[in-house]
Amino acid sequence: MILRVPATSANLGPGFDTLGLSLGLYNRFKIAPSIVQSIKIDGQGCNIPKLLKDNNFIKIFKDVYCELSGEKKEFSFYLKNEIPISRGLGSSSAVVVGAIVSAYEVLKVPYTRDMILSRAIKYEKHPDNITPAVNGGFNIAMIKNSKVFYIKHKIPNDIKAVVVIPDKSISTRYSRKTLPKHYSLQDAVFNISRSSMISGIFLSKRWNLLKIAAEDRIHQDKRMALLPALFSVRKEAIKKGALMSVLSGSGSTFLNICYRDDSSRIAKHLSDKFRDFRVLELEFDNNGFIME
Amino acid sequence: MILRVPATSANLGPGFDTLGLSLGLYNRFKIAPSIVQSIKIDGQGCNIPKLLKDNNFIKIFKDVYCELSGEKKEFSFYLKNEIPISRGLGSSSAVVVGAIVSAYEVLKVPYTRDMILSRAIKYEKHPDNITPAVNGGFNIAMIKNSKVFYIKHKIPNDIKAVVVIPDKSISTRYSRKTLPKHYSLQDAVFNISRSSMISGIFLSKRWNLLKIAAEDRIHQDKRMALLPALFSVRKEAIKKGALMSVLSGSGSTFLNICYRDDSSRIAKHLSDKFRDFRVLELEFDNNGFIME
Repeated sequence: MILRVPATSANLGPGFDTLGLSLGLYNRFKIAPSIVQSIKIDGQGCNIPKLLKDNNFIKIFKDVYCELSGEKKEFSFYLKNEIPISRGLGSSSAVVVGAIVSAYEVLKVPYTRDMILSRAIKYEKHPDNITPAVNGGFNIAMIKNSKVFYIKHKIPNDIKAVVVIPDKSISTRYSRKTLPKHYSLQDAVFNISRSSMISGIFLSKRWNLLKIAAEDRIHQDKRMALLPALFSVRKEAIKKGALMSVLSGSGSTFLNICYRDDSSRIAKHLSDKFRDFRVLELEFDNNGFIME
Repeated sequence: MILRVPATSANLGPGFDTLGLSLGLYNRFKIAPSIVQSIKIDGQGCNIPKLLKDNNFIKIFKDVYCELSGEKKEFSFYLKNEIPISRGLGSSSAVVVGAIVSAYEVLKVPYTRDMILSRAIKYEKHPDNITPAVNGGFNIAMIKNSKVFYIKHKIPNDIKAVVVIPDKSISTRYSRKTLPKHYSLQDAVFNISRSSMISGIFLSKRWNLLKIAAEDRIHQDKRMALLPALFSVRKEAIKKGALMSVLSGSGSTFLNICYRDDSSRIAKHLSDKFRDFRVLELEFDNNGFIME
Protein backbone atom coordinates (compact mmCIF):
# COMPACT_ATOMS: atom_id res chain seq x y z
CA MET A 1 0.00 0.00 0.00
CA ILE A 2 1.55 3.24 -1.15
CA LEU A 3 0.33 6.71 -0.17
CA ARG A 4 0.76 9.44 -2.77
CA VAL A 5 0.66 13.16 -1.87
CA PRO A 6 0.83 15.94 -4.48
CA ALA A 7 3.10 18.97 -4.72
CA THR A 8 1.37 22.29 -4.14
CA SER A 9 1.85 25.90 -5.11
CA ALA A 10 0.69 28.54 -2.65
CA ASN A 11 -0.12 32.27 -2.75
CA LEU A 12 -0.68 32.41 -6.54
CA GLY A 13 0.53 36.02 -6.51
CA PRO A 14 -1.81 38.15 -4.38
CA GLY A 15 -3.46 35.35 -2.37
CA PHE A 16 -0.91 35.43 0.44
CA ASP A 17 -1.42 32.58 2.95
CA THR A 18 -4.80 31.98 1.27
CA LEU A 19 -4.75 30.52 -2.26
CA GLY A 20 -3.11 27.27 -3.33
CA LEU A 21 -3.34 24.54 -5.92
CA SER A 22 -2.18 21.01 -6.38
CA LEU A 23 0.31 19.81 -9.01
CA GLY A 24 0.87 16.44 -10.67
CA LEU A 25 4.22 15.86 -8.97
CA TYR A 26 4.21 13.45 -6.05
CA ASN A 27 5.89 12.15 -2.95
CA ARG A 28 5.10 8.50 -2.20
CA PHE A 29 5.26 6.87 1.19
CA LYS A 30 5.38 3.18 2.06
CA ILE A 31 5.41 1.94 5.62
CA ALA A 32 5.79 -1.59 6.95
CA PRO A 33 6.06 -3.05 10.48
CA SER A 34 9.66 -3.77 11.40
CA ILE A 35 11.71 -4.97 14.37
CA VAL A 36 14.03 -2.00 14.13
CA GLN A 37 13.29 1.36 12.58
CA SER A 38 14.74 1.93 9.13
CA ILE A 39 14.43 4.59 6.47
CA LYS A 40 15.17 4.66 2.77
CA ILE A 41 14.80 7.73 0.59
CA ASP A 42 14.76 7.74 -3.20
CA GLY A 43 14.58 10.81 -5.39
CA GLN A 44 14.56 14.34 -3.95
CA GLY A 45 16.47 14.55 -0.67
CA CYS A 46 18.16 11.14 -1.01
CA ASN A 47 21.55 12.82 -0.75
CA ILE A 48 20.75 14.93 2.33
CA PRO A 49 22.15 12.99 5.35
CA LYS A 50 20.08 15.05 7.83
CA LEU A 51 16.89 13.57 6.36
CA LEU A 52 18.00 10.08 7.30
CA LYS A 53 18.88 10.98 10.89
CA ASP A 54 16.19 13.48 11.83
CA ASN A 55 13.26 12.91 9.53
CA ASN A 56 10.16 15.03 9.95
CA PHE A 57 7.91 12.43 8.31
CA ILE A 58 8.91 9.83 10.91
CA LYS A 59 8.55 12.33 13.78
CA ILE A 60 5.00 13.31 12.79
CA PHE A 61 3.99 9.74 11.92
CA LYS A 62 5.11 8.55 15.37
CA ASP A 63 3.33 11.47 17.07
CA VAL A 64 0.02 10.69 15.40
CA TYR A 65 0.44 6.91 15.63
CA CYS A 66 1.03 7.17 19.37
CA GLU A 67 -1.88 9.58 19.86
CA LEU A 68 -4.28 7.33 17.93
CA SER A 69 -3.21 4.01 19.40
CA GLY A 70 -1.47 4.82 22.66
CA GLU A 71 1.35 2.57 21.46
CA LYS A 72 4.90 2.96 20.17
CA LYS A 73 6.07 0.54 17.49
CA GLU A 74 8.91 0.32 14.98
CA PHE A 75 8.47 0.58 11.23
CA SER A 76 10.46 0.66 8.06
CA PHE A 77 9.86 3.81 6.06
CA TYR A 78 10.31 4.14 2.32
CA LEU A 79 10.04 7.65 0.86
CA LYS A 80 10.10 8.19 -2.89
CA ASN A 81 10.19 11.93 -3.44
CA GLU A 82 9.47 13.78 -6.66
CA ILE A 83 8.84 17.13 -4.95
CA PRO A 84 11.99 19.29 -4.73
CA ILE A 85 12.89 20.29 -1.19
CA SER A 86 12.81 23.97 -0.10
CA ARG A 87 11.73 25.24 -3.48
CA GLY A 88 8.21 26.47 -2.69
CA LEU A 89 6.44 23.38 -4.05
CA GLY A 90 4.97 22.20 -0.77
CA SER A 91 7.41 19.39 0.05
CA SER A 92 7.01 20.00 3.78
CA SER A 93 3.20 20.01 3.49
CA ALA A 94 3.39 16.72 1.57
CA VAL A 95 5.46 15.29 4.41
CA VAL A 96 3.01 16.53 7.07
CA VAL A 97 -0.07 15.27 5.22
CA GLY A 98 1.66 12.03 4.24
CA ALA A 99 2.75 11.27 7.80
CA ILE A 100 -0.71 11.92 9.29
CA VAL A 101 -2.60 9.89 6.66
CA SER A 102 -0.04 7.06 7.00
CA ALA A 103 -0.66 6.79 10.73
CA TYR A 104 -4.44 6.46 10.19
CA GLU A 105 -3.93 3.98 7.34
CA VAL A 106 -1.43 1.78 9.21
CA LEU A 107 -3.77 1.64 12.22
CA LYS A 108 -6.86 1.24 9.99
CA VAL A 109 -8.54 4.08 11.91
CA PRO A 110 -11.27 5.67 9.74
CA TYR A 111 -10.75 9.32 8.84
CA THR A 112 -12.05 12.13 6.66
CA ARG A 113 -10.03 14.66 4.68
CA ASP A 114 -11.20 17.35 7.11
CA MET A 115 -9.77 15.36 10.03
CA ILE A 116 -6.42 15.17 8.24
CA LEU A 117 -6.52 18.91 7.59
CA SER A 118 -7.31 19.70 11.22
CA ARG A 119 -4.26 17.73 12.32
CA ALA A 120 -2.04 19.09 9.56
CA ILE A 121 -2.63 22.74 10.51
CA LYS A 122 -0.99 22.02 13.88
CA TYR A 123 2.28 21.31 12.05
CA GLU A 124 2.04 24.04 9.42
CA LYS A 125 0.97 27.53 10.49
CA HIS A 126 -0.49 28.52 7.11
CA PRO A 127 -3.27 26.68 5.29
CA ASP A 128 -2.34 27.51 1.69
CA ASN A 129 -0.17 24.42 1.04
CA ILE A 130 -1.73 21.78 3.27
CA THR A 131 -5.27 22.42 2.00
CA PRO A 132 -4.52 21.58 -1.65
CA ALA A 133 -2.18 18.75 -0.55
CA VAL A 134 -5.20 17.20 1.19
CA ASN A 135 -7.94 18.11 -1.32
CA GLY A 136 -6.26 18.52 -4.68
CA GLY A 137 -7.49 21.19 -7.10
CA PHE A 138 -7.67 24.94 -6.52
CA ASN A 139 -8.26 25.93 -2.89
CA ILE A 140 -9.22 29.10 -1.05
CA ALA A 141 -8.43 28.69 2.64
CA MET A 142 -8.75 30.67 5.85
CA ILE A 143 -8.21 29.94 9.52
CA LYS A 144 -10.63 30.70 12.35
CA ASN A 145 -10.06 29.48 15.91
CA SER A 146 -7.19 27.27 14.69
CA LYS A 147 -9.52 25.47 12.24
CA VAL A 148 -9.13 25.57 8.46
CA PHE A 149 -12.15 26.54 6.36
CA TYR A 150 -11.84 26.17 2.62
CA ILE A 151 -13.44 26.03 -0.78
CA LYS A 152 -12.01 23.44 -3.16
CA HIS A 153 -12.68 23.63 -6.88
CA LYS A 154 -11.53 21.22 -9.58
CA ILE A 155 -9.11 22.62 -12.14
CA PRO A 156 -10.28 21.81 -15.69
CA ASN A 157 -7.84 20.32 -18.15
CA ASP A 158 -7.70 23.25 -20.56
CA ILE A 159 -4.84 24.71 -18.52
CA LYS A 160 -1.44 23.34 -17.48
CA ALA A 161 1.48 24.36 -15.30
CA VAL A 162 5.05 25.05 -16.33
CA VAL A 163 7.24 25.29 -13.24
CA VAL A 164 10.73 26.74 -13.27
CA ILE A 165 12.81 25.37 -10.40
CA PRO A 166 16.00 27.32 -9.62
CA ASP A 167 19.14 25.59 -8.42
CA LYS A 168 19.02 27.64 -5.20
CA SER A 169 16.42 27.73 -2.46
CA ILE A 170 14.95 30.72 -0.65
CA SER A 171 14.30 29.91 3.01
CA THR A 172 10.64 30.53 3.89
CA ARG A 173 11.58 31.84 7.28
CA TYR A 174 14.25 34.19 5.97
CA SER A 175 12.02 35.19 3.11
CA ARG A 176 9.17 36.01 5.52
CA LYS A 177 11.57 38.20 7.53
CA THR A 178 12.23 40.38 4.49
CA LEU A 179 8.55 41.37 4.40
CA PRO A 180 7.37 44.73 5.77
CA LYS A 181 5.42 44.59 9.03
CA HIS A 182 2.80 47.08 7.80
CA TYR A 183 1.02 47.80 4.57
CA SER A 184 -0.89 50.84 3.37
CA LEU A 185 -4.66 50.64 2.87
CA GLN A 186 -4.02 50.92 -0.88
CA ASP A 187 -1.68 47.94 -0.91
CA ALA A 188 -4.03 45.87 1.24
CA VAL A 189 -6.93 46.66 -1.12
CA PHE A 190 -4.69 45.91 -4.10
CA ASN A 191 -4.20 42.35 -2.82
CA ILE A 192 -7.76 41.93 -1.49
CA SER A 193 -9.20 42.74 -4.93
CA ARG A 194 -6.73 40.61 -6.90
CA SER A 195 -6.91 37.58 -4.63
CA SER A 196 -10.71 37.77 -4.81
CA MET A 197 -10.50 38.03 -8.61
CA ILE A 198 -8.24 34.97 -8.85
CA SER A 199 -10.74 33.06 -6.71
CA GLY A 200 -13.51 34.09 -9.09
CA ILE A 201 -11.40 33.25 -12.14
CA PHE A 202 -10.67 29.68 -11.02
CA LEU A 203 -14.35 29.10 -10.26
CA SER A 204 -15.57 30.60 -13.54
CA LYS A 205 -12.71 29.73 -15.95
CA ARG A 206 -12.22 33.35 -17.01
CA TRP A 207 -8.52 32.58 -17.67
CA ASN A 208 -8.01 35.71 -19.78
CA LEU A 209 -8.24 37.76 -16.56
CA LEU A 210 -5.48 35.83 -14.75
CA LYS A 211 -2.58 37.99 -15.86
CA ILE A 212 -4.23 41.21 -14.70
CA ALA A 213 -5.27 39.70 -11.37
CA ALA A 214 -1.95 38.00 -10.58
CA GLU A 215 -0.10 41.09 -9.37
CA ASP A 216 0.86 41.39 -5.73
CA ARG A 217 2.07 44.08 -3.34
CA ILE A 218 2.56 42.01 -0.19
CA HIS A 219 5.51 39.71 -0.79
CA GLN A 220 6.43 38.72 -4.30
CA ASP A 221 8.89 41.31 -5.59
CA LYS A 222 10.61 41.51 -2.19
CA ARG A 223 11.22 37.77 -2.27
CA MET A 224 12.19 37.70 -5.94
CA ALA A 225 14.88 40.28 -5.14
CA LEU A 226 16.66 37.45 -3.28
CA LEU A 227 17.07 35.71 -6.67
CA PRO A 228 16.82 38.41 -9.34
CA ALA A 229 16.86 35.96 -12.28
CA LEU A 230 13.20 35.33 -11.37
CA PHE A 231 12.25 38.73 -12.80
CA SER A 232 13.53 37.50 -16.17
CA VAL A 233 11.64 34.21 -15.77
CA ARG A 234 8.38 36.14 -15.28
CA LYS A 235 9.09 38.46 -18.20
CA GLU A 236 9.90 35.61 -20.59
CA ALA A 237 6.96 33.45 -19.51
CA ILE A 238 4.46 36.29 -19.99
CA LYS A 239 6.07 37.25 -23.29
CA LYS A 240 5.57 33.69 -24.54
CA GLY A 241 1.90 33.58 -23.61
CA ALA A 242 1.70 32.39 -19.98
CA LEU A 243 -1.67 33.34 -18.47
CA MET A 244 -0.05 33.90 -15.09
CA SER A 245 3.53 33.83 -13.86
CA VAL A 246 4.03 33.97 -10.10
CA LEU A 247 6.36 32.93 -7.32
CA SER A 248 5.36 29.51 -6.01
CA GLY A 249 4.87 29.87 -2.26
CA SER A 250 7.86 31.76 -0.91
CA GLY A 251 9.98 30.59 -3.86
CA SER A 252 12.34 29.90 -5.30
CA THR A 253 10.20 28.07 -7.90
CA PHE A 254 8.18 30.06 -10.39
CA LEU A 255 4.71 28.82 -11.33
CA ASN A 256 3.47 29.60 -14.82
CA ILE A 257 -0.08 28.74 -15.82
CA CYS A 258 -0.91 28.51 -19.51
CA TYR A 259 -3.37 27.00 -21.95
CA ARG A 260 -2.64 23.31 -22.59
CA ASP A 261 -1.72 24.01 -26.21
CA ASP A 262 0.95 26.53 -25.20
CA SER A 263 2.67 24.56 -22.45
CA SER A 264 5.33 22.72 -24.48
CA ARG A 265 6.33 25.84 -26.35
CA ILE A 266 6.59 27.88 -23.14
CA ALA A 267 8.46 25.09 -21.33
CA LYS A 268 10.95 24.78 -24.18
CA HIS A 269 11.55 28.53 -24.29
CA LEU A 270 12.13 28.78 -20.54
CA SER A 271 14.32 25.71 -20.60
CA ASP A 272 16.49 27.20 -23.37
CA LYS A 273 16.71 30.58 -21.61
CA PHE A 274 17.39 29.36 -18.07
CA ARG A 275 19.77 26.44 -18.43
CA ASP A 276 20.68 26.29 -14.73
CA PHE A 277 17.02 25.89 -13.73
CA ARG A 278 14.85 22.79 -14.07
CA VAL A 279 11.71 23.32 -16.12
CA LEU A 280 8.78 20.90 -15.73
CA GLU A 281 5.50 20.76 -17.62
CA LEU A 282 2.91 19.54 -15.12
CA GLU A 283 -0.75 18.62 -15.02
CA PHE A 284 -2.81 19.94 -12.14
CA ASP A 285 -3.85 17.35 -9.55
CA ASN A 286 -7.52 17.21 -8.52
CA ASN A 287 -7.33 14.28 -6.10
CA GLY A 288 -5.15 15.39 -3.22
CA PHE A 289 -3.64 12.45 -1.35
CA ILE A 290 -4.66 8.97 -2.52
CA MET A 291 -3.76 5.37 -1.73
CA GLU A 292 -2.24 3.72 -4.78
CA MET B 1 -38.80 55.32 -21.95
CA ILE B 2 -37.73 54.85 -18.35
CA LEU B 3 -34.25 53.79 -17.21
CA ARG B 4 -34.07 51.70 -14.04
CA VAL B 5 -30.86 51.36 -12.00
CA PRO B 6 -30.57 49.09 -8.94
CA ALA B 7 -29.35 49.80 -5.44
CA THR B 8 -26.04 48.16 -4.54
CA SER B 9 -24.25 46.98 -1.44
CA ALA B 10 -20.45 47.17 -1.44
CA ASN B 11 -17.61 45.63 0.59
CA LEU B 12 -19.66 42.69 1.93
CA GLY B 13 -17.49 42.70 5.05
CA PRO B 14 -13.87 41.95 4.12
CA GLY B 15 -14.03 42.79 0.40
CA PHE B 16 -13.13 46.43 0.84
CA ASP B 17 -13.43 48.44 -2.42
CA THR B 18 -13.74 45.06 -4.20
CA LEU B 19 -16.96 43.11 -3.66
CA GLY B 20 -20.48 44.32 -4.34
CA LEU B 21 -23.94 43.10 -5.21
CA SER B 22 -27.11 44.46 -6.64
CA LEU B 23 -30.45 44.78 -4.81
CA GLY B 24 -34.05 44.88 -6.00
CA LEU B 25 -34.57 48.52 -5.02
CA TYR B 26 -34.45 51.03 -7.87
CA ASN B 27 -34.04 54.59 -8.99
CA ARG B 28 -35.88 55.41 -12.22
CA PHE B 29 -34.98 58.17 -14.64
CA LYS B 30 -37.10 59.70 -17.39
CA ILE B 31 -35.79 62.40 -19.69
CA ALA B 32 -37.58 64.40 -22.37
CA PRO B 33 -36.53 67.29 -24.63
CA SER B 34 -37.71 70.63 -23.29
CA ILE B 35 -37.40 74.34 -24.07
CA VAL B 36 -36.24 75.10 -20.54
CA GLN B 37 -34.57 72.74 -18.12
CA SER B 38 -36.79 71.33 -15.41
CA ILE B 39 -36.44 68.71 -12.70
CA LYS B 40 -38.94 66.76 -10.63
CA ILE B 41 -37.98 64.30 -7.91
CA ASP B 42 -40.30 61.75 -6.34
CA GLY B 43 -39.45 59.46 -3.48
CA GLN B 44 -36.05 59.56 -1.75
CA GLY B 45 -34.51 63.03 -1.81
CA CYS B 46 -37.72 64.82 -2.89
CA ASN B 47 -37.51 67.00 0.21
CA ILE B 48 -33.84 67.98 -0.19
CA PRO B 49 -33.84 71.45 -1.88
CA LYS B 50 -30.14 71.14 -2.82
CA LEU B 51 -31.00 68.25 -5.18
CA LEU B 52 -33.28 70.51 -7.21
CA LYS B 53 -30.69 73.28 -7.55
CA ASP B 54 -27.43 71.41 -7.97
CA ASN B 55 -28.27 67.92 -9.19
CA ASN B 56 -25.45 65.49 -9.87
CA PHE B 57 -27.54 63.44 -12.28
CA ILE B 58 -28.11 66.49 -14.49
CA LYS B 59 -24.46 67.54 -14.27
CA ILE B 60 -23.15 64.11 -15.40
CA PHE B 61 -25.89 63.68 -18.02
CA LYS B 62 -24.97 67.05 -19.58
CA ASP B 63 -21.24 66.23 -19.44
CA VAL B 64 -21.71 62.96 -21.30
CA TYR B 65 -24.38 64.31 -23.65
CA CYS B 66 -22.09 67.15 -24.67
CA GLU B 67 -19.08 64.83 -25.08
CA LEU B 68 -21.05 62.39 -27.25
CA SER B 69 -22.86 64.92 -29.41
CA GLY B 70 -20.86 68.14 -29.18
CA GLU B 71 -24.16 69.87 -28.41
CA LYS B 72 -25.88 71.44 -25.44
CA LYS B 73 -29.66 71.08 -25.19
CA GLU B 74 -32.32 71.47 -22.54
CA PHE B 75 -34.31 68.60 -21.05
CA SER B 76 -36.89 67.89 -18.43
CA PHE B 77 -35.69 65.37 -15.87
CA TYR B 78 -37.94 63.14 -13.81
CA LEU B 79 -36.26 61.13 -11.02
CA LYS B 80 -38.22 58.56 -9.06
CA ASN B 81 -35.96 57.37 -6.28
CA GLU B 82 -36.39 54.29 -4.13
CA ILE B 83 -32.73 54.16 -3.02
CA PRO B 84 -32.15 56.04 0.27
CA ILE B 85 -29.56 58.80 0.01
CA SER B 86 -26.24 58.57 1.93
CA ARG B 87 -27.09 55.24 3.52
CA GLY B 88 -24.52 52.97 1.84
CA LEU B 89 -26.94 51.56 -0.72
CA GLY B 90 -25.25 52.98 -3.80
CA SER B 91 -27.56 55.92 -4.49
CA SER B 92 -24.69 57.96 -5.90
CA SER B 93 -23.57 55.07 -8.14
CA ALA B 94 -27.14 54.72 -9.38
CA VAL B 95 -27.10 58.41 -10.26
CA VAL B 96 -23.74 58.15 -12.06
CA VAL B 97 -24.73 55.03 -14.03
CA GLY B 98 -28.22 56.38 -14.69
CA ALA B 99 -26.93 59.71 -16.03
CA ILE B 100 -24.37 58.09 -18.35
CA VAL B 101 -26.78 55.50 -19.76
CA SER B 102 -29.45 58.20 -20.21
CA ALA B 103 -27.12 60.30 -22.35
CA TYR B 104 -26.40 57.34 -24.65
CA GLU B 105 -30.10 56.43 -24.82
CA VAL B 106 -31.35 59.96 -25.52
CA LEU B 107 -28.77 60.32 -28.32
CA LYS B 108 -29.38 56.77 -29.57
CA VAL B 109 -25.62 56.15 -29.51
CA PRO B 110 -24.91 52.41 -29.22
CA TYR B 111 -23.06 51.28 -26.10
CA THR B 112 -21.97 48.24 -24.13
CA ARG B 113 -22.11 47.76 -20.36
CA ASP B 114 -18.29 47.92 -20.31
CA MET B 115 -18.37 51.32 -21.98
CA ILE B 116 -20.76 52.57 -19.30
CA LEU B 117 -18.49 51.16 -16.59
CA SER B 118 -15.41 52.83 -18.07
CA ARG B 119 -17.16 56.19 -17.96
CA ALA B 120 -18.67 55.61 -14.53
CA ILE B 121 -15.30 54.94 -12.87
CA LYS B 122 -14.28 58.52 -13.74
CA TYR B 123 -17.04 59.79 -11.45
CA GLU B 124 -16.64 57.22 -8.67
CA LYS B 125 -13.15 56.34 -7.45
CA HIS B 126 -14.03 52.83 -6.29
CA PRO B 127 -15.52 50.09 -8.46
CA ASP B 128 -17.48 48.17 -5.83
CA ASN B 129 -20.81 50.00 -6.25
CA ILE B 130 -20.76 51.01 -9.91
CA THR B 131 -19.89 47.50 -11.14
CA PRO B 132 -23.01 45.81 -9.71
CA ALA B 133 -25.12 48.89 -10.59
CA VAL B 134 -24.12 48.26 -14.22
CA ASN B 135 -24.10 44.44 -14.26
CA GLY B 136 -26.45 43.29 -11.52
CA GLY B 137 -25.61 40.18 -9.51
CA PHE B 138 -22.55 39.55 -7.36
CA ASN B 139 -19.42 41.30 -8.61
CA ILE B 140 -15.71 41.08 -7.87
CA ALA B 141 -13.96 44.19 -9.19
CA MET B 142 -10.47 45.63 -9.43
CA ILE B 143 -8.89 48.62 -11.13
CA LYS B 144 -5.79 48.60 -13.30
CA ASN B 145 -4.66 51.66 -15.24
CA SER B 146 -7.96 53.41 -14.43
CA LYS B 147 -9.93 50.56 -16.04
CA VAL B 148 -12.34 48.30 -14.14
CA PHE B 149 -11.93 44.53 -14.49
CA TYR B 150 -14.61 42.36 -12.96
CA ILE B 151 -16.28 39.01 -12.62
CA LYS B 152 -20.06 39.05 -12.46
CA HIS B 153 -21.98 36.08 -11.18
CA LYS B 154 -25.76 35.66 -10.95
CA ILE B 155 -27.19 35.35 -7.44
CA PRO B 156 -29.54 32.37 -7.22
CA ASN B 157 -32.97 32.82 -5.67
CA ASP B 158 -32.43 30.62 -2.63
CA ILE B 159 -31.11 33.64 -0.73
CA LYS B 160 -32.60 37.06 0.02
CA ALA B 161 -31.52 40.33 1.60
CA VAL B 162 -32.88 42.02 4.69
CA VAL B 163 -31.53 45.56 4.91
CA VAL B 164 -31.73 47.68 8.02
CA ILE B 165 -31.62 51.39 7.20
CA PRO B 166 -30.87 53.69 10.13
CA ASP B 167 -32.42 57.13 10.41
CA LYS B 168 -28.93 58.70 10.36
CA SER B 169 -26.28 58.65 7.65
CA ILE B 170 -22.52 58.10 7.96
CA SER B 171 -20.63 60.28 5.48
CA THR B 172 -18.40 58.12 3.25
CA ARG B 173 -15.68 60.71 3.28
CA TYR B 174 -15.76 61.17 7.05
CA SER B 175 -16.05 57.45 7.53
CA ARG B 176 -13.02 56.84 5.29
CA LYS B 177 -11.04 59.34 7.39
CA THR B 178 -11.59 57.27 10.53
CA LEU B 179 -9.70 54.36 8.97
CA PRO B 180 -6.06 53.64 9.90
CA LYS B 181 -3.49 54.45 7.23
CA HIS B 182 -1.61 51.19 7.78
CA TYR B 183 -2.47 47.59 8.52
CA SER B 184 -0.40 44.72 9.85
CA LEU B 185 0.44 41.79 7.59
CA GLN B 186 -1.88 39.67 9.76
CA ASP B 187 -4.82 42.02 9.25
CA ALA B 188 -4.16 42.27 5.51
CA VAL B 189 -4.06 38.46 5.24
CA PHE B 190 -7.21 38.24 7.37
CA ASN B 191 -9.12 40.28 4.77
CA ILE B 192 -7.39 38.76 1.74
CA SER B 193 -8.44 35.27 2.83
CA ARG B 194 -12.01 36.20 3.77
CA SER B 195 -12.69 38.32 0.71
CA SER B 196 -11.37 35.45 -1.45
CA MET B 197 -13.61 33.02 0.44
CA ILE B 198 -16.70 35.22 -0.09
CA SER B 199 -15.88 35.30 -3.80
CA GLY B 200 -15.67 31.51 -3.82
CA ILE B 201 -18.88 31.18 -1.79
CA PHE B 202 -20.96 33.29 -4.19
CA LEU B 203 -19.65 31.32 -7.16
CA SER B 204 -20.19 27.92 -5.53
CA LYS B 205 -23.29 28.56 -3.33
CA ARG B 206 -21.54 27.35 -0.17
CA TRP B 207 -23.76 29.71 1.87
CA ASN B 208 -23.01 27.93 5.14
CA LEU B 209 -19.48 29.41 5.02
CA LEU B 210 -20.68 33.03 4.67
CA LYS B 211 -20.82 33.83 8.37
CA ILE B 212 -17.26 32.66 8.99
CA ALA B 213 -15.91 34.50 5.95
CA ALA B 214 -17.76 37.78 6.54
CA GLU B 215 -15.46 39.14 9.22
CA ASP B 216 -13.32 42.17 8.50
CA ARG B 217 -10.35 43.98 10.03
CA ILE B 218 -10.05 46.91 7.63
CA HIS B 219 -13.04 49.15 8.16
CA GLN B 220 -16.23 47.72 9.55
CA ASP B 221 -16.04 48.00 13.33
CA LYS B 222 -14.37 51.44 13.10
CA ARG B 223 -17.30 52.67 11.02
CA MET B 224 -19.93 50.95 13.11
CA ALA B 225 -18.53 52.78 16.15
CA LEU B 226 -19.99 55.96 14.59
CA LEU B 227 -23.46 54.41 15.11
CA PRO B 228 -23.11 51.81 17.89
CA ALA B 229 -26.67 50.45 17.51
CA LEU B 230 -25.31 48.62 14.45
CA PHE B 231 -23.47 46.18 16.71
CA SER B 232 -26.85 45.14 18.11
CA VAL B 233 -28.30 44.86 14.60
CA ARG B 234 -25.54 42.43 13.66
CA LYS B 235 -25.93 40.43 16.85
CA GLU B 236 -29.71 40.10 16.49
CA ALA B 237 -29.55 39.24 12.78
CA ILE B 238 -27.00 36.48 13.30
CA LYS B 239 -28.91 35.20 16.33
CA LYS B 240 -32.04 34.88 14.19
CA GLY B 241 -30.27 32.91 11.45
CA ALA B 242 -28.80 35.46 9.02
CA LEU B 243 -26.05 33.86 6.93
CA MET B 244 -24.11 37.11 6.91
CA SER B 245 -24.61 40.47 8.55
CA VAL B 246 -22.35 43.29 7.36
CA LEU B 247 -22.17 47.04 6.94
CA SER B 248 -23.45 48.01 3.50
CA GLY B 249 -20.69 50.06 1.87
CA SER B 250 -19.55 52.64 4.39
CA GLY B 251 -22.93 52.44 6.16
CA SER B 252 -25.11 53.34 7.75
CA THR B 253 -27.29 50.54 6.31
CA PHE B 254 -26.73 46.98 7.44
CA LEU B 255 -27.01 44.19 4.87
CA ASN B 256 -28.19 40.82 6.10
CA ILE B 257 -28.20 37.84 3.76
CA CYS B 258 -30.37 34.86 4.63
CA TYR B 259 -32.11 31.86 3.14
CA ARG B 260 -35.35 32.82 1.39
CA ASP B 261 -37.42 30.92 3.95
CA ASP B 262 -35.91 32.87 6.85
CA SER B 263 -36.19 36.38 5.45
CA SER B 264 -39.68 37.36 6.72
CA ARG B 265 -38.97 36.08 10.20
CA ILE B 266 -35.62 37.92 10.38
CA ALA B 267 -37.11 41.10 8.91
CA LYS B 268 -39.96 41.06 11.44
CA HIS B 269 -37.56 40.50 14.36
CA LEU B 270 -35.26 43.36 13.30
CA SER B 271 -38.22 45.59 12.63
CA ASP B 272 -39.62 44.95 16.13
CA LYS B 273 -36.22 45.46 17.78
CA PHE B 274 -35.11 48.58 15.92
CA ARG B 275 -38.22 50.70 15.59
CA ASP B 276 -36.36 53.86 14.49
CA PHE B 277 -34.78 52.04 11.54
CA ARG B 278 -36.43 51.01 8.27
CA VAL B 279 -36.25 47.29 7.56
CA LEU B 280 -36.74 46.05 3.99
CA GLU B 281 -36.88 42.51 2.65
CA LEU B 282 -35.33 42.63 -0.81
CA GLU B 283 -34.66 40.31 -3.72
CA PHE B 284 -31.23 40.45 -5.33
CA ASP B 285 -31.12 42.05 -8.77
CA ASN B 286 -29.32 40.18 -11.57
CA ASN B 287 -29.97 42.61 -14.42
CA GLY B 288 -28.14 45.80 -13.53
CA PHE B 289 -29.58 48.83 -15.34
CA ILE B 290 -32.41 48.18 -17.79
CA MET B 291 -34.77 50.19 -19.97
CA GLU B 292 -38.35 49.64 -18.83
